[in-house]
Amino acid sequence: MSHPRFFAPSASAPGDLVTLPDDEAEHLTRVLRLAPGDRVRVFDGRGAEFESVVEAADKSGVRVRIGVPIASVREARVAVTLAQAVLKGDKMDAVVRDAVMIGVAEIQPIVSARTESSTAALERGRRRERWERIAVSSAKQCGRAVVPPILEPKRLEDVALPSPVFVLVEPGAVSGLSLGESEMPAGGRASVLIGPEGGWTSEELDHAATIGRLLTLGGRTLRADAMALVALAALFARWREY
Amino acid sequence: MSHPRFFAPSASAPGDLVTLPDDEAEHLTRVLRLAPGDRVRVFDGRGAEFESVVEAADKSGVRVRIGVPIASVREARVAVTLAQAVLKGDKMDAVVRDAVMIGVAEIQPIVSARTESSTAALERGRRRERWERIAVSSAKQCGRAVVPPILEPKRLEDVALPSPVFVLVEPGAVSGLSLGESEMPAGGRASVLIGPEGGWTSEELDHAATIGRLLTLGGRTLRADAMALVALAALFARWREY
Repeated sequence: MSHPRFFAPSASAPGDLVTLPDDEAEHLTRVLRLAPGDRVRVFDGRGAEFESVVEAADKSGVRVRIGVPIASVREARVAVTLAQAVLKGDKMDAVVRDAVMIGVAEIQPIVSARTESSTAALERGRRRERWERIAVSSAKQCGRAVVPPILEPKRLEDVALPSPVFVLVEPGAVSGLSLGESEMPAGGRASVLIGPEGGWTSEELDHAATIGRLLTLGGRTLRADAMALVALAALFARWREY
Repeated sequence: MSHPRFFAPSASAPGDLVTLPDDEAEHLTRVLRLAPGDRVRVFDGRGAEFESVVEAADKSGVRVRIGVPIASVREARVAVTLAQAVLKGDKMDAVVRDAVMIGVAEIQPIVSARTESSTAALERGRRRERWERIAVSSAKQCGRAVVPPILEPKRLEDVALPSPVFVLVEPGAVSGLSLGESEMPAGGRASVLIGPEGGWTSEELDHAATIGRLLTLGGRTLRADAMALVALAALFARWREY
């Protein structure tokens, strides 16, 4: 049985004494009921992971002593930026959770014509902070030592994405486009752009076709909140990630 | 805007007057508030779909007149049997919904050592009937004219699955196995066998290795209820379904 894992962004080298973020401290003391002396693992969110020991857990917070570095779970061979149009309610939360689990490198929330929220409304609602917490939680569960950054939400027309860009479209919106060969991107980066519940407008499709390659995933209509997981699994399979 | 779709298992030829199942009748009258004269589509669950017209909607039920056949959404090239160990609570519902959406041919619920329910408990709880309703609902939403059968739940040691069988295992449970080449099965059939939340026991892994090929999907730990969608998307991609 491996030791429980915690996110400690300030961890950097063996011997360090680091204070856990509040959410992590709460998880350690209230949920797992760990105490000084207990062995844990901490990861820095940038790919490093360490054996560690709880040194103090009191009202002033939880401090852990960083121990030996350990091999972290390998990251995906292609660093994928998931550019996802913001979905309604908690559906976007599920997409963030699943995208981190399957192994994206970063998440770019997109505001499109049929997205319900504006970038201003997302900011007022502190949605990005919420998605960041979900990304940490998902990284803990799936075993990654990397917490993919949640980028500042941008309007579709304002976003610049790493190439090549794969634009997912509904069956019927365009015809005859598929994953095809889709060789692994030579530069080790790629982006996957996915629309909101109502799909892209025709103007957006025109714009998307200028920045990327449109593709559909079979003839069956996928739920908007499942599209990212299916597209990423399919691309990773094509790129010999599995 | 296409017409709403309903499941009418007794539809067989143009000119037929068919009575919709109760759930479908309720969806037509109470949710969509359709009435005699309204145009709909019906599919028989076995791959046929027809233009139709509501002819009566009253206390005795909803009857529709079957019109011309229309092209239904293409089924996947490989007919996949998803053999899924029954997950807790509503997680199995989500797997059934997603598996139908992505395009499996049939679903075989499995009782394994770490499955909470026995086959008898599943029967008492009428779980199979529930999953059948979810399969119908998902087929309606994703556009399929096929409703994949939900087979009678079986214990792992009693089940016989179409070959080749791909057995999904946790990262770390075995080493070095991946999708590899996984050419499209020559016989046009395949099975995907997926374990419960706690994974397979070592005895089950030994048994599974005798009936299929063990494989992992990357080093990241996938949630049990997301494993089917990721595995199916990856296999379909490898088999040029996309």
